[in-house]
Amino acid sequence: MRNSKLRSLEEAIRLSGLRNGMTISFHHHFRGGDKVVNMVVDKLAEMGFKDLHLAASSLSDVHTPLIEHIRNGVITKISTSGMRGDLADAVSHGLMAEPVIFRSHGGRGSAIASGELKIDVAFLGASSSDELGNACGFSRSENAKSICGSLGYALPDAQYAKHVVVITDDLVAYPNMPQSISASVVESVVVADSVGDSSKISAGAIRDSKNPRDILLAKQAAKVILASPYFKDGFSIQTGTGGASLAVVKYIRESMIEKGIKASFALGGITAHMVKLHEEGLIGHLIDVQSFDKVAAESIKNDPMHREVSAIEYASGMHTGSATHALDIVILSALEVDTQFNVNVLVGSDGVIRGAIGGHQDTAQDSALSIIVCPLLRGRIPCVVPKVTTLITPGSSVDVVVTEYGIAVNPARPELAEMLKEAGLNILDIKALAEKAKSIIGTPDPLPFGDKVVGIVMNRDGSVLDKIYNV
Amino acid sequence: MRNSKLRSLEEAIRLSGLRNGMTISFHHHFRGGDKVVNMVVDKLAEMGFKDLHLAASSLSDVHTPLIEHIRNGVITKISTSGMRGDLADAVSHGLMAEPVIFRSHGGRGSAIASGELKIDVAFLGASSSDELGNACGFSRSENAKSICGSLGYALPDAQYAKHVVVITDDLVAYPNMPQSISASVVESVVVADSVGDSSKISAGAIRDSKNPRDILLAKQAAKVILASPYFKDGFSIQTGTGGASLAVVKYIRESMIEKGIKASFALGGITAHMVKLHEEGLIGHLIDVQSFDKVAAESIKNDPMHREVSAIEYASGMHTGSATHALDIVILSALEVDTQFNVNVLVGSDGVIRGAIGGHQDTAQDSALSIIVCPLLRGRIPCVVPKVTTLITPGSSVDVVVTEYGIAVNPARPELAEMLKEAGLNILDIKALAEKAKSIIGTPDPLPFGDKVVGIVMNRDGSVLDKIYNV
Repeated sequence: MRNSKLRSLEEAIRLSGLRNGMTISFHHHFRGGDKVVNMVVDKLAEMGFKDLHLAASSLSDVHTPLIEHIRNGVITKISTSGMRGDLADAVSHGLMAEPVIFRSHGGRGSAIASGELKIDVAFLGASSSDELGNACGFSRSENAKSICGSLGYALPDAQYAKHVVVITDDLVAYPNMPQSISASVVESVVVADSVGDSSKISAGAIRDSKNPRDILLAKQAAKVILASPYFKDGFSIQTGTGGASLAVVKYIRESMIEKGIKASFALGGITAHMVKLHEEGLIGHLIDVQSFDKVAAESIKNDPMHREVSAIEYASGMHTGSATHALDIVILSALEVDTQFNVNVLVGSDGVIRGAIGGHQDTAQDSALSIIVCPLLRGRIPCVVPKVTTLITPGSSVDVVVTEYGIAVNPARPELAEMLKEAGLNILDIKALAEKAKSIIGTPDPLPFGDKVVGIVMNRDGSVLDKIYNV
Repeated sequence: MRNSKLRSLEEAIRLSGLRNGMTISFHHHFRGGDKVVNMVVDKLAEMGFKDLHLAASSLSDVHTPLIEHIRNGVITKISTSGMRGDLADAVSHGLMAEPVIFRSHGGRGSAIASGELKIDVAFLGASSSDELGNACGFSRSENAKSICGSLGYALPDAQYAKHVVVITDDLVAYPNMPQSISASVVESVVVADSVGDSSKISAGAIRDSKNPRDILLAKQAAKVILASPYFKDGFSIQTGTGGASLAVVKYIRESMIEKGIKASFALGGITAHMVKLHEEGLIGHLIDVQSFDKVAAESIKNDPMHREVSAIEYASGMHTGSATHALDIVILSALEVDTQFNVNVLVGSDGVIRGAIGGHQDTAQDSALSIIVCPLLRGRIPCVVPKVTTLITPGSSVDVVVTEYGIAVNPARPELAEMLKEAGLNILDIKALAEKAKSIIGTPDPLPFGDKVVGIVMNRDGSVLDKIYNV
């Protein structure tokens, strides 16, 4: 067609004006199935680029090849929500000269909007695009190869990056409708064999858990919700990653039906559970920044009451209209919680990075009721501790901690503790939970941290929360 | 709800930080039924504001009360696409010290995006909004009072204004879904009795014509389309305001069915005619920057293949992905065409402003085939003239001029002239048309222009095209 923006990846990179030292960005909607980061960085390495800042909405196991590109000086700085696998391990052991910057999803949206995080060239994978760049996380064509649903984390990049390259594995006729990314902000469209393996969207941190302890924690969290003042007609809910938190909706469904209570919306990573409740009429709207499985991705394609939002619209602390500002209840997981209710979801008890901030900081702070589900122990590792290894979400944002040994309520919420006690729940002081963990396992040896800063944890308002040292 | 942005209009204005000398903006989706401009400017006058720049996407007859506010120094500068009625008459007679700036819809989008037109406070009427500011040109609630469909001209203001106030006559439960204006960019929500009279959307320049000359012109234009190389499967089309241009689709419909030709999309002001062809399967997609009647407004509410675009996505010359860049055929009206194919759609033959640039410049330049439908004479007024009173769309953007006395083809398109001749159409030199008009009416007296500049016509690229003098 006239004015086509179709180019090879190399042509698109040349046209972008990318130079050494600049910032490139990516989204992680394909999660473990992502093929765009490696494809683009391989090409940039081949073209001789050096000293690039890679600003992804998140990174995962599949990005192990970045290790070589870091060693070779192609990538010298990383900003992300999280990191897992060999790359995270290498970074924790001091791979990079510059510390990795970790931001929440809302914090990243704010940082992009404010100009704190300036993106020179965004490389955005899409499951469909037309030749002008109207792009989408699904495709209505017969040749559809991939689907990821919402492109919420790509939208701030699309809006604010100086130059946007869409990479798609299904080029469709103009106009691609509806589109997530508007052709108005796109400079080049590149066709690739595959942008992502959709079967891996729901792998890793968002798999459906069969673990009996997860199920126990989910049931306990559901009891907290039912006994809280927020479980009433028109309430809203979000479940974070992790088997226990994702499963909570399954256990409140029956009470919703019994009491005739309907939710106005579910927010965040949207799952098949949420879609089911929505289709049953129990949840009015789905506000989707990231589709957590293929069922959710198919739903956003077909259901007008299942709507994509950008990371900014989802959870920016800088924007007054963020959906988190209307959120009643969030259920979140944790690697560690401490006696000040501080939460760590990023650094393992061995000091190695193995997680992601995600929307943890954002939703915990903005919601009316934030519930952390966390086992007291994971094997020989205590999860309720005197002090978290790394501070991700300040205790002031956390209301309730649910463990398999009992439930702790933040002392700032005495009325809530009272209600939960009256409902017959086992409410304990959080120090008692930490003592219990200690009594079973003892005090673990201090972690063998070095003195090199390998990561910096940002708060969603742009301030520094904590530093991560090498192991 | 928590974090509600509900305020009175006065509170919203105070919170906005508006000061004398600043720029306020409005959209014109309710056209002759708009109630927001007068409501807000009355309030600003009452609050004592002076020296404001009013930047509307367009103004019409209903805005006569602005005359008093201009006389009283509340409004001292206006930017708009057009102007009609008493206000236009008064401006033409020298009401304002500063000339009015006229921009095309795409040009306004570009000017807002580039920062050439900086908006301090946007006051955006919406047919529904929730308390956080997710707002829309229709409502799904039982209390819906108004409907205007697409909010395309409001979206650049929503995106770039420093402060956004949504004014709605139907406050709905959060989340208002789908939304046009995102809560993320909204600071206040004001509830008003009425934001617009939907019955007047299709009044004025976009009424359905029964005028036999309009029908003749529409049929001739349809013949031009059918004989052109652009009438083939997958073509795209836009019809501008004016009875003749709007009616053209009616007359190509039969040939589309007969030849099995389907359009990929219709663009622009979307009409009931377009919706009908879309619902019949003859037009695949409707790309809607402005719903030209209630049928179109209802359609965008319910049909996922009828999609809102912003003025930028529609027609910005600065953005490579504008829908106009993919447009094959546009049919536009004119007040005057001259022998250089230049077009005037803004200033009447009496020298008085009585129209709007609209998307004229944008679509004429970007489309593959631009057809101007224009009678040779309107009463005693010649419409094909040696030189247009005011230059709005340069002749280099115009391909064909259709009159009731014959059809002229721009000499830059000899191959097109040849095809139309072969199809048996009456192709004349445009000078012959001007001569014909002159032979019937004679040469009109020169217009009694003064030497005060009352209007400046911008080209869509931000350069000055022409000046309008007082009469």
